[in-house]
Amino acid sequence: MNESLIQQLKQIVGDKNVETSKMSLHSYSYDATPNFQHSPDVVVAPNNTGEISAILKICNEHKIPVTPRGSGTNLSAGTTPLHGGVVLLFKHMNQILEIDEENLTVTVQPGVITKNLIDKVEAKGLLYPPDPSSMNISTIGGNINENSGGLRGLKYGVTHDYVLGLTLVLPNGDILQTGGKLAKDVAGYDLTSLFIGSEGTLGVITEAILKLVPLPEYKKTMLATYQDIDNAARTVSAIIANKIIPATLEFMDQATIEVVEEYNQIGLPTDAKAILLIEQDGSRETVDKDIEKIEAICKKFNAVSVSVAKDEEEADSLRTARRSTLSTIARLRPTTFLEDATVPRSQVATMVKEINRIALKYNIKICTFGHAGDGNLHPTVPTDVRNKEEFHRVEMAFAEIFEKAVELGGTITGEHGVGAMKAPFLKLKLGEEGIRAMKVIKQGFDPHNIMNPGKLFIEQM
Amino acid sequence: MNESLIQQLKQIVGDKNVETSKMSLHSYSYDATPNFQHSPDVVVAPNNTGEISAILKICNEHKIPVTPRGSGTNLSAGTTPLHGGVVLLFKHMNQILEIDEENLTVTVQPGVITKNLIDKVEAKGLLYPPDPSSMNISTIGGNINENSGGLRGLKYGVTHDYVLGLTLVLPNGDILQTGGKLAKDVAGYDLTSLFIGSEGTLGVITEAILKLVPLPEYKKTMLATYQDIDNAARTVSAIIANKIIPATLEFMDQATIEVVEEYNQIGLPTDAKAILLIEQDGSRETVDKDIEKIEAICKKFNAVSVSVAKDEEEADSLRTARRSTLSTIARLRPTTFLEDATVPRSQVATMVKEINRIALKYNIKICTFGHAGDGNLHPTVPTDVRNKEEFHRVEMAFAEIFEKAVELGGTITGEHGVGAMKAPFLKLKLGEEGIRAMKVIKQGFDPHNIMNPGKLFIEQM
Repeated sequence: MNESLIQQLKQIVGDKNVETSKMSLHSYSYDATPNFQHSPDVVVAPNNTGEISAILKICNEHKIPVTPRGSGTNLSAGTTPLHGGVVLLFKHMNQILEIDEENLTVTVQPGVITKNLIDKVEAKGLLYPPDPSSMNISTIGGNINENSGGLRGLKYGVTHDYVLGLTLVLPNGDILQTGGKLAKDVAGYDLTSLFIGSEGTLGVITEAILKLVPLPEYKKTMLATYQDIDNAARTVSAIIANKIIPATLEFMDQATIEVVEEYNQIGLPTDAKAILLIEQDGSRETVDKDIEKIEAICKKFNAVSVSVAKDEEEADSLRTARRSTLSTIARLRPTTFLEDATVPRSQVATMVKEINRIALKYNIKICTFGHAGDGNLHPTVPTDVRNKEEFHRVEMAFAEIFEKAVELGGTITGEHGVGAMKAPFLKLKLGEEGIRAMKVIKQGFDPHNIMNPGKLFIEQM
Repeated sequence: MNESLIQQLKQIVGDKNVETSKMSLHSYSYDATPNFQHSPDVVVAPNNTGEISAILKICNEHKIPVTPRGSGTNLSAGTTPLHGGVVLLFKHMNQILEIDEENLTVTVQPGVITKNLIDKVEAKGLLYPPDPSSMNISTIGGNINENSGGLRGLKYGVTHDYVLGLTLVLPNGDILQTGGKLAKDVAGYDLTSLFIGSEGTLGVITEAILKLVPLPEYKKTMLATYQDIDNAARTVSAIIANKIIPATLEFMDQATIEVVEEYNQIGLPTDAKAILLIEQDGSRETVDKDIEKIEAICKKFNAVSVSVAKDEEEADSLRTARRSTLSTIARLRPTTFLEDATVPRSQVATMVKEINRIALKYNIKICTFGHAGDGNLHPTVPTDVRNKEEFHRVEMAFAEIFEKAVELGGTITGEHGVGAMKAPFLKLKLGEEGIRAMKVIKQGFDPHNIMNPGKLFIEQM
């Protein structure tokens, strides 16, 4: 990028909001995904939608790549500026603009930290359900661009289910308002949904109207341990088959339990082959009844132990342990690859066993945990990318995991996105026809491929 | 269309599945929307996805319009073949293919009647929530193409919230599988959502995987009557503000009550200015508690009477009366226009009063009813299109209603779609930029504009 373009950007957002220092460029050259890095040419922090429109017009005219970035917690290299250009930051667009208690909506800018939003609405007796494990640092803008899930997905769904309207800037500078504070809106194509999970490849999300629900009055948390993965998986299926939809239904395998316990020291049974962390929320009567039924189901499927957290503190330590899995596994080796192959719920046991078979085949360690109720598993490999031979085996293992997930009726990613990392595997799920259909959309909205290039689609070299 | 093309269609689907009789062509020349009619050239009933792909390839090559049609209950002229060509029927693709109790999914062909699906899954203790008033005759394919709502939308959402995966045929003949039996899938753009509510303008939906939820164990139905619309609207807001989300929260104004009571004779108070029909479902304890709270709220806002249905029979007669509104109003005059302007819940009272003002201004009768909890109102006008002067006043009134809805933060259609009827008003909601963005998608998928032409977009003459 030449100096004249940098000057134009400074005129739009102000001098202090355009960074070209070596340290800045380095800081925004990578995200939470190992092995993907590229320096941007400039880091820009706009103040409002109008500025973003002006930036995109210039970048579109000069064919300069633009990568919007929240907190960079992305796990599929979705926020790495692989072709340089502009990294867009939302640090000045981080306000909760309105909590509307009558319409049960909250209007936010993209830079709001997920956890801040959750806390703010909870103080008003309301719940914003999507709670990705990264919620303490992730932004709502990032969550929407990635369609983030979380631990409450089984009962409450994912980010997609809570976005009612968006303000969007397209590569040509057009500003669009989609949806609104509306429970229903069928006026034209669902542009809101199209942008949710589009990984910043179609335009920039600059504001969002999100749906809230009443905060449940009561919650119970329990832990069941198993000597056998099949029994844990059968428990998951039986709970649902008994018409109970828990708020949370999380799974950890033995490899994960060992690592998490070593770090957290909260008394997880390291000799167990599998753990289920189960939560239910709602009215006190319903929760008590459901938890009682779930306990009986766990025991029926030979749980070695079933214990209900005695208070919120104990429950919280269990949830925190679960949320800490990635960071605890990351302590084992220099590099951590966390994946999120997803299968129909009925295939969870088969998938976990396939992952274990694949780990043996390629002689690598895989810790598997995840959202069992959603069929969304996180096989995680502690490794070292500098060891080329081992890294090659890791790559082969993941390729086989993705193939198996799709073969079982699943998908290559449940909540982390495709990014650059899984672009080579997208065809497995969508076929040539699906990729073609997606390219129709990409080329239509972004003919110069300025928006987050190198993501979703394999690049022609 | 020349005879050679008809012959090609016959070769694909079999002679008996290609109809060109005058009666057939007439039967499929209109839908439930008054004042829109055009004869197709041929009516084709394919047997499977492969045949539909072959049909679209031929039509795409010869630029022949294709209008997919369920039961033709559409209220925005969405299924009228305005440019002739092929009407596609799904009478041979009307099977429920699988109810999967472990994954809580049902796989259906587009021709399945909505009510049949609801009954079939209910027999297994499961619920498919979207319940449009036309559900006794509407098809699932139609519901998906229109993103249909229904009476349970407030708590359970609309069709969009229950579609997990689709089999699609694009105009070029490509066959795509999107989604799956998956709670989560972020592999690429959300093509599933893009096709939901796309009104048959992008391709043909040939199969769908739908999400089910456990059937609530208990339900209660109640009726509150008011001498004043504001108090009814305040009750709606107060229920939600008290963190109760009822399954159903329906509104009828006096004009509607009079007509419905005259036909149904179930004892509705014809002197009331407004009625709320409220239902809650869930566990017995929760329902009892919620209904008790709702009763108190109704009384607080000066409901003249509040009565809980004593049994399922009485509840059903109330629901049936509500569902019969369109057909009962239709008895008054030769033509009935039913609209579905939608506003944020907090604006329902304002919108109803605006509708009444507009009715006076243009000296027409408007009966307003609808889904108060969703802000989705159905101002309905009994009229006679042969009376050109009156009809002009009706058109002016609707234009003003749409403008007002958008001004209040609402939309021109909550659940009926844009079709041909509301195409002139789409710009009100989306602006030039929004229409441009939609055209990018339309032109990308359907460059020859063969799929349901004349819908969504104003035509260039």
